[in-house]
Amino acid sequence: MKIFVVNSGSSSLKYQLLDMDNGAVMTTGLVERIGDAMGKVSQKSWPGTEREAEVEREVAFPDHRAAMHTVVDLVTGADTGVIASSAEINAIGHRVVQGGETLFKSTLIDDDVVEKIRENCHLSPLHNPANLVGIEVARELFAGVPQVAVFDTEFHQTMPAEAFMYPIPYELYEELKIRRYGFHGTSHRYVAQQAAAMLGKAEDEVNLVTLHLGNGCSMAAVRGGKCIDTSMGLTPLAGVMMGTRSGDIDPAILPFLMKEKGLSMDEVDSILNKQSGLKGICGMNDMRDIHSAAEKGDKKAALAVDMFVYRIKKYIGAYYAVTGPLDALVFTAGIGENDEIVRARVCANLEHLGISIDSTRNAGRKKVATAVQADGSKVAILVIPTNEELAIAKATLSVLK
Amino acid sequence: MKIFVVNSGSSSLKYQLLDMDNGAVMTTGLVERIGDAMGKVSQKSWPGTEREAEVEREVAFPDHRAAMHTVVDLVTGADTGVIASSAEINAIGHRVVQGGETLFKSTLIDDDVVEKIRENCHLSPLHNPANLVGIEVARELFAGVPQVAVFDTEFHQTMPAEAFMYPIPYELYEELKIRRYGFHGTSHRYVAQQAAAMLGKAEDEVNLVTLHLGNGCSMAAVRGGKCIDTSMGLTPLAGVMMGTRSGDIDPAILPFLMKEKGLSMDEVDSILNKQSGLKGICGMNDMRDIHSAAEKGDKKAALAVDMFVYRIKKYIGAYYAVTGPLDALVFTAGIGENDEIVRARVCANLEHLGISIDSTRNAGRKKVATAVQADGSKVAILVIPTNEELAIAKATLSVLK
Repeated sequence: MKIFVVNSGSSSLKYQLLDMDNGAVMTTGLVERIGDAMGKVSQKSWPGTEREAEVEREVAFPDHRAAMHTVVDLVTGADTGVIASSAEINAIGHRVVQGGETLFKSTLIDDDVVEKIRENCHLSPLHNPANLVGIEVARELFAGVPQVAVFDTEFHQTMPAEAFMYPIPYELYEELKIRRYGFHGTSHRYVAQQAAAMLGKAEDEVNLVTLHLGNGCSMAAVRGGKCIDTSMGLTPLAGVMMGTRSGDIDPAILPFLMKEKGLSMDEVDSILNKQSGLKGICGMNDMRDIHSAAEKGDKKAALAVDMFVYRIKKYIGAYYAVTGPLDALVFTAGIGENDEIVRARVCANLEHLGISIDSTRNAGRKKVATAVQADGSKVAILVIPTNEELAIAKATLSVLK
Repeated sequence: MKIFVVNSGSSSLKYQLLDMDNGAVMTTGLVERIGDAMGKVSQKSWPGTEREAEVEREVAFPDHRAAMHTVVDLVTGADTGVIASSAEINAIGHRVVQGGETLFKSTLIDDDVVEKIRENCHLSPLHNPANLVGIEVARELFAGVPQVAVFDTEFHQTMPAEAFMYPIPYELYEELKIRRYGFHGTSHRYVAQQAAAMLGKAEDEVNLVTLHLGNGCSMAAVRGGKCIDTSMGLTPLAGVMMGTRSGDIDPAILPFLMKEKGLSMDEVDSILNKQSGLKGICGMNDMRDIHSAAEKGDKKAALAVDMFVYRIKKYIGAYYAVTGPLDALVFTAGIGENDEIVRARVCANLEHLGISIDSTRNAGRKKVATAVQADGSKVAILVIPTNEELAIAKATLSVLK
């Protein structure tokens, strides 16, 4: 069973072909700058094996259709290919950011599903339209191949109303579907399942706080294997501090900034999404650069880390309160997997929550799932590399079954 | 030593005269609808004693000066008075909402202080100008009497940068002083001091979470007697859910609403401040009405309570994480003092935080400070009636000493 996973962005196309019989990644690639004068495609086949082979080409891609054609050529090509023909692809799994309230489970794509994804575009105007383009092109090119939509919001659909409703006029929920959806759901679900396995428990028996800390950051409270709360909201702007996004702030800051600075709402929105977070405080948004600047005495870099860590600690406490006794904290994504300083500082001084990290176990980047809690820590501290493509492929497989 | 406490709003003037030798309230009153065609003044002298006497008059008050003149007449009048002449007033304490970063401690008012309060008006455009009017009128009428400004933001000035800074461009802090200030500080400080006394500990030894739950709601994390975090922010819109204010929401909801509904920023701001919170969810903002509707099966009323309680629980967890082992939760203000249902539900299922409430002790409204935790609860649960006027009078006294 070979599953092709597609993550279509507004000017990019990420893909991966997985052999689900053995879980192997056959090839993984990325098309960039679709629609620009010159674009680029890079592909790595059989990564991490002796057969590993990379190819990179500068080509202009007028649109996603052209990009997808090139991808099919690369995946099936005599030199660059891993399969003889696209007919070997058994199914396609598409990442879709926003399922809204109408698409709450991974689902086989038909015209009705396409229409529902389109109807949810107003909730995710940056992502859903781009996801749809990928779906439409793939449905044309791979006619007859079953295609499945897997939603970023899906894992969070188990949140109770008290967690997903906002304290704003109820009619705004009814009319515009303004509520907390949450994102990174595929990642949170994947690491929650892995964590249960590591703990030797059934999936529906674990209480967790999962921390997806990458460029975007989000956290989830998991009780009995189900998501009961998550830090992102209607949009991915909410929650903990991120690379360039503010996360939670006093909402009155927006009108304040518009008035005091004479800015438009779009300008304020852009500041909060692109000029805030770590970058807003210290001018950098790569945590490695920030640590190294902080070590050299850069006070704003040190403050950025302090703030980043502090806000995560508060979310851990909040989720600890509502989840009940915790089995584990689970760190994942770029910072979560690779940044021992952040992990150590997040877990510091949380002994009253039963959380105690072991500095030796915590040291270094984690390419495989690793338990890093101290002996005697009531709560396990797990670092689990996320794998959204594998999770999408698995979800695709389970829809087909 | 007689201290006159003034809380001047945009169209109202609250006042209290306290005899600090014995802590007695000599008289307490309220002028309403200043500037309207017809206003009202009501005063209660010697409240709670045999001499208790009430007076209420409908009078037009063209401005705060006229209101203050009437107040002086009432306080010193042959029939309604509690002192023979205003010369008996030894000092005046003024509530000022926003001290900004320039006024971080209660201070004797002079021209320089007035100017600084004025400079902070942009941070609190609804309150500081009204507070200033009261100060200016009182300085005229009580020339020579020492007057002290006591700030709502004062208790929160001990927050570390990681708690008060927002993850937005650092220049916005430097240029506009956008940061977390917090409010209700006089109340949080007062109940924190009372809690220390009840616990038999020194003020700088207690770790608390204080919950000021009234029309406006805020919480504070107190470590070693000092505020280290609070839920309100740049403005009183942030934090937990309130009567008509949303509290924390995804900040992207503001631009979303502007676009989808074609609203101006002022309209959105007004929705979040006046049509949200409990009222937004169920149409009511008095918790007694909401409980009674919920009991009769009103699902939106039940949801409003669920959301209100849930958001407070998350703040308790967040503050528990950063404060360290807690000595007590402290409930105060209208809902905190009088609503046993909210107290019980907030404390339910927090045994893993060492919090366990006793339903018998918790029952009923609390007119005096009461401990309501269960035997064996690691964390004390205290209900302490707030007294902002007394706190302002005490702060005024300590500035004079």
